[in-house]
Amino acid sequence: MGGNSFGNIFKLTTFGESHGPAIGGGIDGCPAGVSIDFDKIQHEMDRRKPGQSKIVTQRKEPDTVTFQSGIFEGVTTGMPIGFIIKNTDQKSKDYSHIKDVFRPSHADFTYNEKYGQRDYRGGGRSSARETACRVVAGAIAKQFLSGISITAYTSSIGTISLGENHHNLDLSKTESNIVRCPDMAVAEAMIAEINTIRKEGDTIGGTVSCVLKNVPVGLGEPVYDRLHAQLGKAMLSINAVKGFEYGSGFEGVKMKGSAHNDTFNADGTTKTNHSGGIQGGVSNGMGIYFNVAFKPVATVMQSQDTIDNAGNLVKMHGKGRHDPCVVPRAVPIVEAMAALVLADFTLLNRLSKK
Amino acid sequence: MGGNSFGNIFKLTTFGESHGPAIGGGIDGCPAGVSIDFDKIQHEMDRRKPGQSKIVTQRKEPDTVTFQSGIFEGVTTGMPIGFIIKNTDQKSKDYSHIKDVFRPSHADFTYNEKYGQRDYRGGGRSSARETACRVVAGAIAKQFLSGISITAYTSSIGTISLGENHHNLDLSKTESNIVRCPDMAVAEAMIAEINTIRKEGDTIGGTVSCVLKNVPVGLGEPVYDRLHAQLGKAMLSINAVKGFEYGSGFEGVKMKGSAHNDTFNADGTTKTNHSGGIQGGVSNGMGIYFNVAFKPVATVMQSQDTIDNAGNLVKMHGKGRHDPCVVPRAVPIVEAMAALVLADFTLLNRLSKK
Amino acid sequence: MGGNSFGNIFKLTTFGESHGPAIGGGIDGCPAGVSIDFDKIQHEMDRRKPGQSKIVTQRKEPDTVTFQSGIFEGVTTGMPIGFIIKNTDQKSKDYSHIKDVFRPSHADFTYNEKYGQRDYRGGGRSSARETACRVVAGAIAKQFLSGISITAYTSSIGTISLGENHHNLDLSKTESNIVRCPDMAVAEAMIAEINTIRKEGDTIGGTVSCVLKNVPVGLGEPVYDRLHAQLGKAMLSINAVKGFEYGSGFEGVKMKGSAHNDTFNADGTTKTNHSGGIQGGVSNGMGIYFNVAFKPVATVMQSQDTIDNAGNLVKMHGKGRHDPCVVPRAVPIVEAMAALVLADFTLLNRLSKK
Amino acid sequence: MGGNSFGNIFKLTTFGESHGPAIGGGIDGCPAGVSIDFDKIQHEMDRRKPGQSKIVTQRKEPDTVTFQSGIFEGVTTGMPIGFIIKNTDQKSKDYSHIKDVFRPSHADFTYNEKYGQRDYRGGGRSSARETACRVVAGAIAKQFLSGISITAYTSSIGTISLGENHHNLDLSKTESNIVRCPDMAVAEAMIAEINTIRKEGDTIGGTVSCVLKNVPVGLGEPVYDRLHAQLGKAMLSINAVKGFEYGSGFEGVKMKGSAHNDTFNADGTTKTNHSGGIQGGVSNGMGIYFNVAFKPVATVMQSQDTIDNAGNLVKMHGKGRHDPCVVPRAVPIVEAMAALVLADFTLLNRLSKK
Repeated sequence: MGGNSFGNIFKLTTFGESHGPAIGGGIDGCPAGVSIDFDKIQHEMDRRKPGQSKIVTQRKEPDTVTFQSGIFEGVTTGMPIGFIIKNTDQKSKDYSHIKDVFRPSHADFTYNEKYGQRDYRGGGRSSARETACRVVAGAIAKQFLSGISITAYTSSIGTISLGENHHNLDLSKTESNIVRCPDMAVAEAMIAEINTIRKEGDTIGGTVSCVLKNVPVGLGEPVYDRLHAQLGKAMLSINAVKGFEYGSGFEGVKMKGSAHNDTFNADGTTKTNHSGGIQGGVSNGMGIYFNVAFKPVATVMQSQDTIDNAGNLVKMHGKGRHDPCVVPRAVPIVEAMAALVLADFTLLNRLSKK
Repeated sequence: MGGNSFGNIFKLTTFGESHGPAIGGGIDGCPAGVSIDFDKIQHEMDRRKPGQSKIVTQRKEPDTVTFQSGIFEGVTTGMPIGFIIKNTDQKSKDYSHIKDVFRPSHADFTYNEKYGQRDYRGGGRSSARETACRVVAGAIAKQFLSGISITAYTSSIGTISLGENHHNLDLSKTESNIVRCPDMAVAEAMIAEINTIRKEGDTIGGTVSCVLKNVPVGLGEPVYDRLHAQLGKAMLSINAVKGFEYGSGFEGVKMKGSAHNDTFNADGTTKTNHSGGIQGGVSNGMGIYFNVAFKPVATVMQSQDTIDNAGNLVKMHGKGRHDPCVVPRAVPIVEAMAALVLADFTLLNRLSKK
Repeated sequence: MGGNSFGNIFKLTTFGESHGPAIGGGIDGCPAGVSIDFDKIQHEMDRRKPGQSKIVTQRKEPDTVTFQSGIFEGVTTGMPIGFIIKNTDQKSKDYSHIKDVFRPSHADFTYNEKYGQRDYRGGGRSSARETACRVVAGAIAKQFLSGISITAYTSSIGTISLGENHHNLDLSKTESNIVRCPDMAVAEAMIAEINTIRKEGDTIGGTVSCVLKNVPVGLGEPVYDRLHAQLGKAMLSINAVKGFEYGSGFEGVKMKGSAHNDTFNADGTTKTNHSGGIQGGVSNGMGIYFNVAFKPVATVMQSQDTIDNAGNLVKMHGKGRHDPCVVPRAVPIVEAMAALVLADFTLLNRLSKK
Repeated sequence: MGGNSFGNIFKLTTFGESHGPAIGGGIDGCPAGVSIDFDKIQHEMDRRKPGQSKIVTQRKEPDTVTFQSGIFEGVTTGMPIGFIIKNTDQKSKDYSHIKDVFRPSHADFTYNEKYGQRDYRGGGRSSARETACRVVAGAIAKQFLSGISITAYTSSIGTISLGENHHNLDLSKTESNIVRCPDMAVAEAMIAEINTIRKEGDTIGGTVSCVLKNVPVGLGEPVYDRLHAQLGKAMLSINAVKGFEYGSGFEGVKMKGSAHNDTFNADGTTKTNHSGGIQGGVSNGMGIYFNVAFKPVATVMQSQDTIDNAGNLVKMHGKGRHDPCVVPRAVPIVEAMAALVLADFTLLNRLSKK
């Protein structure tokens, strides 16, 4: 119950802190017979890794994954896929200034209360470094799910919003710019905004949107394990996420049922898709789309009031190389979590009929 | 894996369709020694039941729960709490018109594809009638959680929005009107809106907000079982929900980190609460608050284009007594699901230290 | 975690005490499309029910199951199968003599310590009455598993042992006598033994053996969920069970590897079957067979020394109508649990390959 | 569901094959604040490791565990404890002779059928090498469980049996000889027997017994998760195990209830302990004891008939350095699995009362 596993059948279990020797984990339940393209896995890792552009943290971490098991002669064997991502040499002294101090809006205070102690070096387990493991597992899930396309992109940074439905976007352009927004003009504005924020020593939030295409009918389980409920949990488990909506989402509450209903074509497709590709918690074959809200990073390069372990009011000032905005690096993480959910429900869906 | 259980330790498992003999289930993991006030349970049931006011479905169902086990001499024994809620006499003929027709934006099509068949009578398992079981379990969870307050309310109906932070509201007034909005003037407008919509044979969506107070520090598990991830899944598993946000939510993405961070007071409380009472996935002792988006009900009293099992385009017209808006009845369901999450994490939190 | 569920995918969750209004539960994960023969279910119930012969308890309980959900027009729908078995009118006064007294070798003392209280009426949740729910679920699992034969029988009562390998027995004769032993002469001796014991006001143990035929290759999951590990857990979860062995079992430890190894025929079958149809935790297509040890029933019709809640030494004397030996009624329970395990692993085995 | 996790709360998940780069895993749910003595962990590893004496396999593997996470400054943090045990350089050519051949009574055939392929090098995932991970986790569980003693020993090798109840043994002598039998004379006979068997190129089975003392009242969950059911599953999941019995076990079936019942002393202890320290599935504070049957190792240094992938009858001859008897090395594995079960139920038992 420790909260370090995700999924029912296709199941990821991870371990590791940001400043221990390594992070890693195991993927249980990946079927045998999936050919693995290791370059594709590293490609996903590179999309998430620090230092990839001027608008993300300048830390240099190669984020190389080494597999320990479960893949034999390039093909999955049905056995758990163990993997390790070494942490590069960390200067522990960098973190001495936060040993006894609770950083505002971090997990420092809550972990300390819950566990009676904490690994204070850079957030330890609460660091977003853990998401590298998700990207490894998601990259394998994507290869299992060949045929389904999973595409996320940056849809807003601060107040700069793409303002377009995904139907009107050319998502193939997402990776052509460093902020991962498929509209080049909006992307430029977003990049400029992050640069401005970074120079202020501040941070900014944003939104990632994700589109899942060619999802077969039938994924999702009734009642408590609806497809969108598990997608929502997957996204809300990512560091810094504050909200999730799918299909018509929060705007849809303003609509009337007669307008919101997606009437059928003869082939079972629907004329509109306010449902977001999911009806009764089960995929209906239409495109699935959802939005994920990321708050601004809590570590700012400014002086802040806070308290220490003893309850004394102290000042602290962010140090080190942090992201002014997590959103560009969050895009592959959102895709990875979506892939894990779809892989899990794809397997569960084999069990619905006699 | 069938998707009919919720929770890890304090765990609800349900069964039953809207038109079978009964719905019911079992609550496993409720500790021994909780004194049960049965009137409080029925009170929660009454808040959810059909026919309670002019703006909800006029179906008459008493929704009486009978307990089968797990409570002895008025106190929980630690054994599973089994319960049954009988379905009152249903006229199956009422549903003959939908036997071979897929209602738009319902689960008819997806269930039929997934399972190769379906109980077509009123939605069967996909009916929101299942939520009565959640209210039973939530009412027991609330009694286990004595000391924590869980209060939901209607914050928008269509475009009519409360527009106020929960801090400025007197939540004790929520139950004083039939739409369950704590501001009487806004409530009147909401009720009028629902009435108008109902007369049009149409439906409308809305938003439920929820506030959790006196939650101790430490609830929630790291990484994949963050408190807000499980709250999100709980809410997204409720029929008709399209979105979930907590704390600063989707609006918070526009903020800078320096403004969004919640700086500490000496006692560990924070000066602001953009975090929504949760940091690093673990409650920090501040108030927890979140919003849940409900789409308009799919059953409208209008003629709609649809298809039948054979793929023929046909016309259908909603019949029966349906809710023009689910939001007023959803308020106790949101509370119930929040209670289940808190009960589960309260128990898990006993396991964090040696 | 309350311990009231069994299985991963094909999952039974039960509730109910021996002297509450009813016992019951839900079966989650049974695939859609299984035609249900209700007479076969009742037939299994009748094999377990009290009062069926002179060598079992003379309590009269019809043990009629009523299904609440999950079966529509005689076919499973993929939705949870809820069911209720009413407890017939119990005289609570029958149990006043044990309200404050701990019966030796029962759960009275341990439950009281663990939960701080207990439902003292006839054992409450710890009563073997709960096994009626297992028989319901097992009967449905058997219908899902059509093609696999699951046959248990009484192989020893006290010191009277069948002493024959199952290969040399005609298992079709098992149900032809009330002790459920396929050798009529041995059965007579067993029946006489139980009668003698019963007249002494005493009880006796015994062994149930079980044979599973036509099990396809591939059931069972590596490492922790080996087929025999889950079979063992299933059997050890039945009231009064003290041991489980499969294949060559405890006797096999005396063999040399060269003799114990099952060498192959060209078609993948093996010349011997010391492995008991399971290799590496996975079924190999040969017959699976195992033995289950049942201790003598703890309730004897004799005066015994014991203690009460206050720690006072007191005398107690068994009352009521109890089984002198559980083994004849345990035969269908062993089959039911085996069916649940096979149904679960049959579904899991659909997930092993891409 | 892949079968690579054990436990509910204190949960071990492992990965790795015998001839991949490493085996390892993660322990989730170990509470924060447990001081870890790494020497004690290595001591347990040394009890299991190959090459430790003349009667076990002469393979040389140091079996050094390196922890990756979850322990900070020598104390558990409540985060998952990740660990790696590198496989020393393996000569893959040693296994070319079994690439296309199914070894009798191994997992080769069943894995190949289930997964459509297999890692043929030395058994891969089905190798008992995986049990090294169990010993790591069990050693940590033991440190969490300080106060409870967990002691296993060899009680039979082939037909040479200790023949004594554990009450009459001085278990402190178990580690004084290489077969781990607490009676020195019997140990000598067992060692001689294994030596004889080894020289024949054959193998032999045996029995491990285990005693758990100072277990508090209350461990175990009702119905399906009885303490002995989970202990049984734990033991049956160990390679080569064919049977499990606790308390009076298979012999107890011959007893009458009046003799088998454990009558109480005034302090809640019992005069006898046929129950084996567990009543109603819950520990009663008396010593828990059980026996585990291990079959003879399947790899014999003799020529055997078998088949290859294509169904051809072929001869094969065991090669390499294998155990003539697993029992001496299984003793610490049995202890480790018992420790995992007790740690899990110790945590679950915190949840039984309000």
